[in-house]
Amino acid sequence: MNVTKSQVLRNVSEVPSVLAFSQTAPDAGGFGGCMSILLRWKGSIYKTIWKDLLVYYGLYYLITIIHNYVLDEDGKRAFVALAKYCLKNSNSINVMIMLTFFTTTALHRLFAMQTMIPGTAKVITFFVLSLKPNLPEGPIVVEQFARWTVLAWILTFRVVSKPLRTMFPDIISLQVAGIIKEKERLLLERVETERNKTPRALMVIDWMLLLMKESSVHNRFAEKSNYLKAVEVLMTFKKGCGNTIKFATKNMPYALIQAVIIVVYTYGLVTLIARNVEEASSCVFVEVIVNYIPIIPSMQFFVFLVWLNFGRVAVNPFGTDDDDIDVTLLFKTHVQDSFRLASLYSQDLEQIFGQMPQ
Amino acid sequence: MNVTKSQVLRNVSEVPSVLAFSQTAPDAGGFGGCMSILLRWKGSIYKTIWKDLLVYYGLYYLITIIHNYVLDEDGKRAFVALAKYCLKNSNSINVMIMLTFFTTTALHRLFAMQTMIPGTAKVITFFVLSLKPNLPEGPIVVEQFARWTVLAWILTFRVVSKPLRTMFPDIISLQVAGIIKEKERLLLERVETERNKTPRALMVIDWMLLLMKESSVHNRFAEKSNYLKAVEVLMTFKKGCGNTIKFATKNMPYALIQAVIIVVYTYGLVTLIARNVEEASSCVFVEVIVNYIPIIPSMQFFVFLVWLNFGRVAVNPFGTDDDDIDVTLLFKTHVQDSFRLASLYSQDLEQIFGQMPQ
Amino acid sequence: MNVTKSQVLRNVSEVPSVLAFSQTAPDAGGFGGCMSILLRWKGSIYKTIWKDLLVYYGLYYLITIIHNYVLDEDGKRAFVALAKYCLKNSNSINVMIMLTFFTTTALHRLFAMQTMIPGTAKVITFFVLSLKPNLPEGPIVVEQFARWTVLAWILTFRVVSKPLRTMFPDIISLQVAGIIKEKERLLLERVETERNKTPRALMVIDWMLLLMKESSVHNRFAEKSNYLKAVEVLMTFKKGCGNTIKFATKNMPYALIQAVIIVVYTYGLVTLIARNVEEASSCVFVEVIVNYIPIIPSMQFFVFLVWLNFGRVAVNPFGTDDDDIDVTLLFKTHVQDSFRLASLYSQDLEQIFGQMPQ
Amino acid sequence: MNVTKSQVLRNVSEVPSVLAFSQTAPDAGGFGGCMSILLRWKGSIYKTIWKDLLVYYGLYYLITIIHNYVLDEDGKRAFVALAKYCLKNSNSINVMIMLTFFTTTALHRLFAMQTMIPGTAKVITFFVLSLKPNLPEGPIVVEQFARWTVLAWILTFRVVSKPLRTMFPDIISLQVAGIIKEKERLLLERVETERNKTPRALMVIDWMLLLMKESSVHNRFAEKSNYLKAVEVLMTFKKGCGNTIKFATKNMPYALIQAVIIVVYTYGLVTLIARNVEEASSCVFVEVIVNYIPIIPSMQFFVFLVWLNFGRVAVNPFGTDDDDIDVTLLFKTHVQDSFRLASLYSQDLEQIFGQMPQ
Amino acid sequence: MNVTKSQVLRNVSEVPSVLAFSQTAPDAGGFGGCMSILLRWKGSIYKTIWKDLLVYYGLYYLITIIHNYVLDEDGKRAFVALAKYCLKNSNSINVMIMLTFFTTTALHRLFAMQTMIPGTAKVITFFVLSLKPNLPEGPIVVEQFARWTVLAWILTFRVVSKPLRTMFPDIISLQVAGIIKEKERLLLERVETERNKTPRALMVIDWMLLLMKESSVHNRFAEKSNYLKAVEVLMTFKKGCGNTIKFATKNMPYALIQAVIIVVYTYGLVTLIARNVEEASSCVFVEVIVNYIPIIPSMQFFVFLVWLNFGRVAVNPFGTDDDDIDVTLLFKTHVQDSFRLASLYSQDLEQIFGQMPQ
Repeated sequence: MNVTKSQVLRNVSEVPSVLAFSQTAPDAGGFGGCMSILLRWKGSIYKTIWKDLLVYYGLYYLITIIHNYVLDEDGKRAFVALAKYCLKNSNSINVMIMLTFFTTTALHRLFAMQTMIPGTAKVITFFVLSLKPNLPEGPIVVEQFARWTVLAWILTFRVVSKPLRTMFPDIISLQVAGIIKEKERLLLERVETERNKTPRALMVIDWMLLLMKESSVHNRFAEKSNYLKAVEVLMTFKKGCGNTIKFATKNMPYALIQAVIIVVYTYGLVTLIARNVEEASSCVFVEVIVNYIPIIPSMQFFVFLVWLNFGRVAVNPFGTDDDDIDVTLLFKTHVQDSFRLASLYSQDLEQIFGQMPQ
Repeated sequence: MNVTKSQVLRNVSEVPSVLAFSQTAPDAGGFGGCMSILLRWKGSIYKTIWKDLLVYYGLYYLITIIHNYVLDEDGKRAFVALAKYCLKNSNSINVMIMLTFFTTTALHRLFAMQTMIPGTAKVITFFVLSLKPNLPEGPIVVEQFARWTVLAWILTFRVVSKPLRTMFPDIISLQVAGIIKEKERLLLERVETERNKTPRALMVIDWMLLLMKESSVHNRFAEKSNYLKAVEVLMTFKKGCGNTIKFATKNMPYALIQAVIIVVYTYGLVTLIARNVEEASSCVFVEVIVNYIPIIPSMQFFVFLVWLNFGRVAVNPFGTDDDDIDVTLLFKTHVQDSFRLASLYSQDLEQIFGQMPQ
Repeated sequence: MNVTKSQVLRNVSEVPSVLAFSQTAPDAGGFGGCMSILLRWKGSIYKTIWKDLLVYYGLYYLITIIHNYVLDEDGKRAFVALAKYCLKNSNSINVMIMLTFFTTTALHRLFAMQTMIPGTAKVITFFVLSLKPNLPEGPIVVEQFARWTVLAWILTFRVVSKPLRTMFPDIISLQVAGIIKEKERLLLERVETERNKTPRALMVIDWMLLLMKESSVHNRFAEKSNYLKAVEVLMTFKKGCGNTIKFATKNMPYALIQAVIIVVYTYGLVTLIARNVEEASSCVFVEVIVNYIPIIPSMQFFVFLVWLNFGRVAVNPFGTDDDDIDVTLLFKTHVQDSFRLASLYSQDLEQIFGQMPQ
Repeated sequence: MNVTKSQVLRNVSEVPSVLAFSQTAPDAGGFGGCMSILLRWKGSIYKTIWKDLLVYYGLYYLITIIHNYVLDEDGKRAFVALAKYCLKNSNSINVMIMLTFFTTTALHRLFAMQTMIPGTAKVITFFVLSLKPNLPEGPIVVEQFARWTVLAWILTFRVVSKPLRTMFPDIISLQVAGIIKEKERLLLERVETERNKTPRALMVIDWMLLLMKESSVHNRFAEKSNYLKAVEVLMTFKKGCGNTIKFATKNMPYALIQAVIIVVYTYGLVTLIARNVEEASSCVFVEVIVNYIPIIPSMQFFVFLVWLNFGRVAVNPFGTDDDDIDVTLLFKTHVQDSFRLASLYSQDLEQIFGQMPQ
Repeated sequence: MNVTKSQVLRNVSEVPSVLAFSQTAPDAGGFGGCMSILLRWKGSIYKTIWKDLLVYYGLYYLITIIHNYVLDEDGKRAFVALAKYCLKNSNSINVMIMLTFFTTTALHRLFAMQTMIPGTAKVITFFVLSLKPNLPEGPIVVEQFARWTVLAWILTFRVVSKPLRTMFPDIISLQVAGIIKEKERLLLERVETERNKTPRALMVIDWMLLLMKESSVHNRFAEKSNYLKAVEVLMTFKKGCGNTIKFATKNMPYALIQAVIIVVYTYGLVTLIARNVEEASSCVFVEVIVNYIPIIPSMQFFVFLVWLNFGRVAVNPFGTDDDDIDVTLLFKTHVQDSFRLASLYSQDLEQIFGQMPQ
């Protein structure tokens, strides 16, 4: 498994403390904190909408030019009437509450999911510590259990996360990475096909259950009652995996996402045309603003756009968007953790600190 | 039970990984993702409302034609007055907040329920692994317990899900499918009648409790304390079943659903008539828009309609709507799982992987 | 206890499956489903508000008649001014958000409570199965425990539910129904009086704890550790009872309910008078609508009324309203369940299915 | 401890069933229920706002009089202009949503806290029942544990509840009430001072832990494993105490409460002046209404005021407001319960019911 | 560790009861309570916004002066047109709902986090009480475990809390404070670097697990089953640590905070210019108000500003803002608690109270 070890080495920016320093929000009270938030690029509002912004302003100026220099008198009158009509009706599109509902619901689901996301650490720790110490076959059993736990985790998240699917496009790639053995690969390739539709992650969890049963039969648990406790922890892990897939596949209805997208972009189109031409003509200064600096009318649209974006990111948090959960980093962490926790079986405080009491 | 086995074979589109790939939402950041969402038909907004759309536009044009070509001068004046009256009052119907309340509450209940939905896997796994291995009667006991678990699940979901009720219209159909035996059928047919109103699912859970008691009396549990633990897991399963039925039968008040439907359709009727005839007459271009392309006024109504639909789907998520939980697929999964988990009892890691350590 | 048995026989419409069929909401997608919802009478919006509707329209026409045929010119002018004044100010009463808050909070509390409502099944099952089988005194102990559980449940719900209070107005009526014995009645009548204010339900739970202690002392539990587990389950039941009473007595503040009622009915009064008399005079057709068919203005009021009603029903869900929890039906179910579960103690799978393995 | 016993005797209105009858909300469907809610005084909206109402109307009439009889023509013009200015701007103060947010958040926190509030019953019951029966020192140990539990409860709620602080202003008052002994008082007075800042409740919980340890060492637990279980229940109780203090001290930010108060009262001031003087002059009837019966404009303000009040009551639910949790009553209940539960140790079913089976 | 002891001495204002008295909100019903809230400075609205207020009014008067005394006729006309344009459009920026969403979500996350924040007390208590009493090495083992628990807590909160990071800028500072030993420091400095990216807190938790394993091997637990229970409590603690870091680093999206800041300040700018110049000119009295006392227009902006501030404080509750969680105080409490709880191991009720029974 040397391959894996080198593969999962993280670079500086992934050292946990460094990561945390850069991700914690600054203090609220102070001009500096405000600026440091506003000037951030990564995951920023600017990065999210600069393309839409460009297209929007391009179209806006185009319409202004057409109105001023292309249209004849009749065309101008029709345009003014249309602009007035749009201006009047733009308020009647009740975008805000629907967007609020969509984004709120999506974000709340996301937050709920984040606390339910299954971790491998508890399962492995529990199994490792519930065994009798110093069994000759102990390290092998423990290593295999830890590897399978990580494997079940990967097979679960491959289903929902595209980046992980790119990293491990098929079962053979998992073997290459040293995560599964030849024999296991053959078994895994036989399921999730037309004839045997058991999900692969469940297959691996079955193996883990059997390994626990075997450990119980061979009397490897320090206490008999540890067996069922370890099974319970594993069942919780399994439920976590199931919930993750349920979250990704039984999410916000498609029709709702479509409805919100259509309504927001229609609103954008309407604000492009809606302009108070009459008011503009009263004064050159205002005319310039109305024709060339539509900050206030467009701001509303971009607030909607940004908001829509949050909702859409929250609907699929395992992708490659900036605010998404970084599943590949998570994967590396779980692999590292599994090594560390499995090694707990044969480790000893004395090895680390020398003779106790100090 | 060969019949059942073949009956529950799923076709390609039901292979879990394939299902998940097609159900996960695409990334938020990108034009492609946006399009792939908008162009989807299954479960889409278009599929939901195309009929209503057709009726709405049909009526709209009809009214336009009547106004322009049928009515005499007096009729026209009356119509214009009515249109103005509708236009003025249409804003005073506060549909949005009530709809928000209805749909939000319905969706939140649905999400809460989704995490509480009872699964058969934990009950079966727990029972299988808590028994002593290698009992001669073990496989039979385990198979029977697994079958009864699935049976209790089916009897619960038959109550709330119409598709499952269509699949198994009566108890005899369950026997035909190989899920219950003759003897059990006779017992089940005797309850839920005028004279004995015990729900059938509770009957089956009683059998499971008795089977556990028997297992305890015959000393089949690996440890004595496993008995009560298994009972506890079963009680949790029972509570899950009860909650599912409670969710379906004690749901949003009928009067609320009626109120929302009435208000939304009344709003639709009002927007059909409400049209700014005066403004339209100022310019031919706008007149055409007002009379024939009522996108902006109708959009609001369709947003309401779509939203109402989400709420109604969420109120009964076990039906045949596109976003509903596919109970028959779930049923097949549970049957397959019960086979797999029951087989854990007699399986062995060695059978699978050969001699351990590898 | 034959009396009780016959008393709790439910009639056809209470058979669980029949109940569920009629209470599940129909599919969302379809004209039929929509109609079947709209045409329902039981628990419908029509049943809720028909009286208010009658009074409202009666008053409305009365005012119309007074305006048209009773008032002289000065009176008419004053009326028109008043109508305009009301029309203008009716929008400034922000009823909606307050109502939303009230109803949402009440409904959410109700949903939360529904999952916390205590059930007797788990307590009884746990006690029954944790005892050694085949004890000679077993059936009596079990029967007594089951009866006391139901008794504690009744004494709890009598406090919050008027229908149950009507069913069992005093302790003697419980003895008549065969639920308590002479001796127990005498003890129960001594508490909840001026001199001894212990709630009666707590008294019964004390008895159950003592029965458990006795069972432990007489070594009736199959395993010693079962004792504390059973105590824990009972404590959870007790907490559930306490929460139910807390829910009913520490609920929405009275002042809030008063405020909402006052505001909604004031709004109704204002809409009665507020009518656009000027606009009406422009055209006979509109005049008729304004004077005699005030659907749009009144609709808003009835939406508020219906909504207010949901909130008030949710505040006290144990009463006799249509959407209330049917506590007397629940009571019958719990009595039946207690018989069934107590009988598990002496039952046997063999008695039911004959010799196992089949 | 005779002193305490007499001190905690509750009067009739505190008998649980009587309390519950008067606190349960009436049925929603009916004119009677509506009236019985509206006519209630205790905890009513009238009691809450009658003083503000008086001040408001006093000021309103004062302004009317100044306008009509004091001001000269110039003053009148200025007043009319100011009234118009206020009328126009009063709508731009978006009070409602901010209030909704404040009150909703405060109430939700309150409801969440109500279910987390620590109770003494479970801790005491668990300890009492986990001991071996019939130990000679048993009753003393149990009595001491029960007393300490109540003591920890009091020391926790003294911190957050002013009424309880008034009841027990210092540690010596607890000794007078018979709740602590001389020795304990001396120990408690030494903590929470400049030199030793351990909270007093933690001190008592330490004693309880030591009592449990001693019980374990002296082999008083019926089963060895009972020891840690009882510790766990105590830790949950401790966490409940901690959460109660956290709730009271880390609550809604002060600035938010200030902001809401300022905004609501400013709104009130603005509505005092804002009056449609022009419209009023059109007709004597309306003029009287505008000048002397400002029900509609003031109603909005009072809705805000009432709402603000709910929020503020919910922020500190342990005070003396009408809807507050009655901590002194709670205290009495806990004292009574602790006597009852401690007596379970030496009680016997036979003592109560005579020879079993009946 | 004498250094630490003196370092963690808290001054008077940190005595728990004193703290609580000053932090509990006053009663709602009364003029006094209202005033005592309004006049508070610490954590008040005034402290939060006085700088912004100064800048805002400065700019407001500057614009007034420029308009009145600097601009010529053309400039004035342009200004009036611009002011009208801003006034009209200021309402179309829908700030409120977006702010509500942001602040509500942030505050709810914060409240949820507050109940999940990991405490050291339970872990230490559980370990201390699960050991056999009177082991010779007991006090050392217990002291080490307690110290490591605090260490894991510190290493977790150093990541998220700047004040704690200032207090302990590096590992050596922890050694100086007596919290870690030389050997431990060397080990901790080797992780979280480029080559070994295990988070430091996890390292310490590994040591604790190993200490538990060792205790189990050396048979130090009073009962064998205590071992796994203590492991479970530790895993919960670990999960709490992980959730705290997750909360701080996977929080509200940056783009959302940016969007809200931009929108609120743009709104402020618009309200600076937007003034009803025409209305003002009708009467000198109103002109003065419009030009120099813009309380009503600015109030809306400051409500937004205050609200924005709550949200931003809630996003990072571990900083130095007034409403933040005081992590350094928390740290001192945990250190003190760990001493107290570790001392429970060798303490005895007799030592405290003398010979029992009293």
